[in-house]
Amino acid sequence: MNERVLLGHGSGGSLSRDLLKDVFLQAYASSELLRLEDQARLNVEEDRICFTTDSYVVDPLEFPGGDIGCMAIHGTVNDLAVGGAKPRWIGAAFILEEGLDIGLLERIVRSAAKAARSCGVEIVTGDTKVVPAGKADKIFLNTSGIGVLGRETRVGADRIQVGDKVLLNGTVGDHGVTIMAAREGLRLGGDLRSDTASVWPGVSRLLERCGQAVHAMRDPTRGGLASALHELAEMAGVAVELQESQIPVSPAVGSACEILGLDPLQVANEGKLVAFVAAESAEEALHVLKETDRGEKAAIIGEVVSGPKGRITLRTEVGGTRVVPLLSGDLLPRIC
Amino acid sequence: MNERVLLGHGSGGSLSRDLLKDVFLQAYASSELLRLEDQARLNVEEDRICFTTDSYVVDPLEFPGGDIGCMAIHGTVNDLAVGGAKPRWIGAAFILEEGLDIGLLERIVRSAAKAARSCGVEIVTGDTKVVPAGKADKIFLNTSGIGVLGRETRVGADRIQVGDKVLLNGTVGDHGVTIMAAREGLRLGGDLRSDTASVWPGVSRLLERCGQAVHAMRDPTRGGLASALHELAEMAGVAVELQESQIPVSPAVGSACEILGLDPLQVANEGKLVAFVAAESAEEALHVLKETDRGEKAAIIGEVVSGPKGRITLRTEVGGTRVVPLLSGDLLPRIC
Repeated sequence: MNERVLLGHGSGGSLSRDLLKDVFLQAYASSELLRLEDQARLNVEEDRICFTTDSYVVDPLEFPGGDIGCMAIHGTVNDLAVGGAKPRWIGAAFILEEGLDIGLLERIVRSAAKAARSCGVEIVTGDTKVVPAGKADKIFLNTSGIGVLGRETRVGADRIQVGDKVLLNGTVGDHGVTIMAAREGLRLGGDLRSDTASVWPGVSRLLERCGQAVHAMRDPTRGGLASALHELAEMAGVAVELQESQIPVSPAVGSACEILGLDPLQVANEGKLVAFVAAESAEEALHVLKETDRGEKAAIIGEVVSGPKGRITLRTEVGGTRVVPLLSGDLLPRIC
Repeated sequence: MNERVLLGHGSGGSLSRDLLKDVFLQAYASSELLRLEDQARLNVEEDRICFTTDSYVVDPLEFPGGDIGCMAIHGTVNDLAVGGAKPRWIGAAFILEEGLDIGLLERIVRSAAKAARSCGVEIVTGDTKVVPAGKADKIFLNTSGIGVLGRETRVGADRIQVGDKVLLNGTVGDHGVTIMAAREGLRLGGDLRSDTASVWPGVSRLLERCGQAVHAMRDPTRGGLASALHELAEMAGVAVELQESQIPVSPAVGSACEILGLDPLQVANEGKLVAFVAAESAEEALHVLKETDRGEKAAIIGEVVSGPKGRITLRTEVGGTRVVPLLSGDLLPRIC
């Protein structure tokens, strides 16, 4: 095995086959992948599926709490989960820069494989392309995913109603601030770690215990909690009022945001779940989220109100109210 | 609308939303996409589906006969089709370089949308990331796809048998030679055009008319016909003997390959289908392929023989026999 990625690893010839066998198949261990056909065959037991795709271009590739490999799996698992679908199958497509260290690639691929196992999904199809040095930045990774929707499951922005409570499963801003600190070599103090994780355990218990009282869910990634709430509120034609004192922010992220002049509501997350739940089931839903792994900081952070569609307001700790703007440009490129 | 892609177009904020609405939704016009959820919900009428993913990094982005947009749709449609699955849904994920001309992006997106319509597939989910100038080369495009497998359909390398005839639906090498000429500014004469196209019309008619006599199929892309045959023959544990005189090569590609010292069997295609068919149905299958659009040059190019597994030999026009090697390195990076 070579120690660096060569252009020939993308040729479709014997070098491609070697890379596939030595790096990818070893880590994924999927019987569908081992068929080596151009497509995976899957048996679906329900007649409704969910389908999603996302590319990951995060820089740096490895960071406290995770790397591009596990993060891409979690991200795609989460996009299925917030639709109420049980994540099942993943396609993983790598674009590699010529000269990439094979050891780094192996770490990333193994991390993706491990994350997939722990999420209960199978990587069943994939692709690898290699571009000349300087034409990409080390590794870009696309993950697409298929999940299965139960017959009873109905979640979506169209089910949001005035009076719904807004729940969050933990602290905001951890991923974004961690990447920023890692990239710029900032020593911000405290224990900064990406929150990259699957939200499916929380989602599945919510659906089990609260059923159709769960109206809509999102995983607030790029653009942060603010973006996710804006999108949902706009689609639902409602406004949302948040209680600043109820939104969990870790001390490390809080002080980093103060130093850097950032609003933690606009900073990216990779393992957070925001759920709109009927008011009468909100306490039960909170209990469920708190019981989930890493869910001890879960909170009811606000509620749906009638008002200009898409408007998100924040009741501040000192008693005032401010509008939470939708981020226009970019806090930081390549956050995910 | 800006005329260039900005980093903020990848932020997840309002600029991202503008790009989505102005460029992507306009072109795709999919009701699932218009839901603007993070995943598409799909109803499957059969309980077996196929799933595939591929990234496209072709350089140049536009070339005679096509562009990265339509090519990515055709490529994913073809990976499903050769598994015997009717292509249905596509996810399209773009990685864009900051500063990219929006007009170019619009042409590519429209071309993808047009190809999808003409293939009868729907683009139901997508993603866009933007990386700083110099960190990617204009546009990389990942397409993932889902197809539906009929209950009776059984194709795969494991069904290949000694005596099977090998069929091809047209000339080889057109795509690779076209890209090479376009990139290097070579004037090779003749009418060089990429063969990018869907093979599903040919596949569906083959399955309809020849049923289970169709044992296995591939679309010979990177690595050319040689790679596709090697892969299938190795998986099936057989050898293949080709008749050089029967393999269609256009005059333009033939003379270009002579000048450049290339073997047309190793040059990439993007609209070719190679099918292994039971001998007694081979003439019927040939008739079907010849009747398909652009199929007039279809031919029976060889047959499956017992011999060292994976060995591909060529009976030359002058009566000799040579082994067709599997390409090791790369003829040309970024061919697809």
